[in-house]
Amino acid sequence: MSGALTIVGLGPGAPDLITPAATRALAEATDLVGYGPYIDRIPEIGADQTVHASDNRVELDRARHALTLAASGRRVAVVSGGDPGVFAMAAAVFEAVEKGDPVWRDIDIRVEPGVTAMLAAAASVGAPLGGDFCAISLSDNLKSWATIERRLRVAADADFVIALYNAASKARPHQLDRAFDLLRTLKGGETVTLLVRAAGTVEAKVTITTLAEANARTADMRTLIIVGSSSTRLISRSGPLPWVYTPRSEET
Amino acid sequence: MSGALTIVGLGPGAPDLITPAATRALAEATDLVGYGPYIDRIPEIGADQTVHASDNRVELDRARHALTLAASGRRVAVVSGGDPGVFAMAAAVFEAVEKGDPVWRDIDIRVEPGVTAMLAAAASVGAPLGGDFCAISLSDNLKSWATIERRLRVAADADFVIALYNAASKARPHQLDRAFDLLRTLKGGETVTLLVRAAGTVEAKVTITTLAEANARTADMRTLIIVGSSSTRLISRSGPLPWVYTPRSEET
Repeated sequence: MSGALTIVGLGPGAPDLITPAATRALAEATDLVGYGPYIDRIPEIGADQTVHASDNRVELDRARHALTLAASGRRVAVVSGGDPGVFAMAAAVFEAVEKGDPVWRDIDIRVEPGVTAMLAAAASVGAPLGGDFCAISLSDNLKSWATIERRLRVAADADFVIALYNAASKARPHQLDRAFDLLRTLKGGETVTLLVRAAGTVEAKVTITTLAEANARTADMRTLIIVGSSSTRLISRSGPLPWVYTPRSEET
Repeated sequence: MSGALTIVGLGPGAPDLITPAATRALAEATDLVGYGPYIDRIPEIGADQTVHASDNRVELDRARHALTLAASGRRVAVVSGGDPGVFAMAAAVFEAVEKGDPVWRDIDIRVEPGVTAMLAAAASVGAPLGGDFCAISLSDNLKSWATIERRLRVAADADFVIALYNAASKARPHQLDRAFDLLRTLKGGETVTLLVRAAGTVEAKVTITTLAEANARTADMRTLIIVGSSSTRLISRSGPLPWVYTPRSEET
């Protein structure tokens, strides 16, 4: 028989941001496959469920392992942070299917969407993604820096709000520096810039700054960056931080 | 006293895609404010909750009404489809705050994120947003068509996957035609193009086509469009539709 594989989005971290559909997909699985810290976020693991935790940066191996289990008749949940389709596990699974054993194409594969990091980061400060926006991964493990730079250039040129994923890690400390340096040559120094660490968790930490003042060294692999459009602005208030939003209109 | 206002993302439509945090925010509200069809999607409305349903396209009026209620001490939930921060109610509320009564700045305003339409649409076909992508609203109610066209041009130039929101409505039947026509001059006719109606609901209908064949007349206000990058591709399988994904890497 052919089993099933669901790639499950756990959302940004808080248990109450996991959709009921995702929770059900996790509960119905016989096998749970994923990067260790995501496995640790599953609220409840049954005694009859088999856990296959793995290191980060081995997405294709993990995908193949999950597909092999599913092809043997298991009901597999591959866990993913945020939304599986945004710089996460879904593309790795389909890449493995495309390149792999033809019998994998008969597996019932589903994707359970989730709240991706930029949505949680935006919600924590207001509505900075209120206009047109783009999402760019700064990791050059899988694409060239030239491609990343070209996309940053056009995003600045077209005045998109820019969400940066995989902005920094121990293995890649310099990309965000380079991205900020490039954007400073293309956009005003006063452009609103947000560094949101652990968005959508109880540990969330928000830094509201400007492009001129933004410090890449304060970011790590849990930090989502939002660089505003020319109309992204602050609303001062009595609270500790201003609100940040991007008007829907060009004319406001 | 000053009340509270939460802008709540209901997700794409299915009740099991509403986060527990959003459900709790709805349950704790004394007043529910929103566009009628979104109010209708609230799974349970208490007898002690006051409902304020309104027409679409009056976002600012609705936001001001909600802020007035909150300033009078009510606990208000403004309901929004998808994620409130993506072409939805959050930016309208903050715009109203910025322009409105200064006492509104003392209101405890929160945003509860949700699964936005492009994530549900992508999940229903595979992982078409697997690379860098942008999200553009085709509505020219609030920005000029020249701006929309410029953003489509650079998005094509930089080979982003492109998600189109507000692609078509009765009041605006021609924008999607124009967008497809423009993109056909900039991208290959074989570019994978998806029209996903009512993504993330039981009524979901997926059309997988090419940019050359894409027909704007099959879209309506519930249709989310995804135009692939040059590497977005299909994986044939025994099921009714192929899977669609965009590789994470440029080299595959």
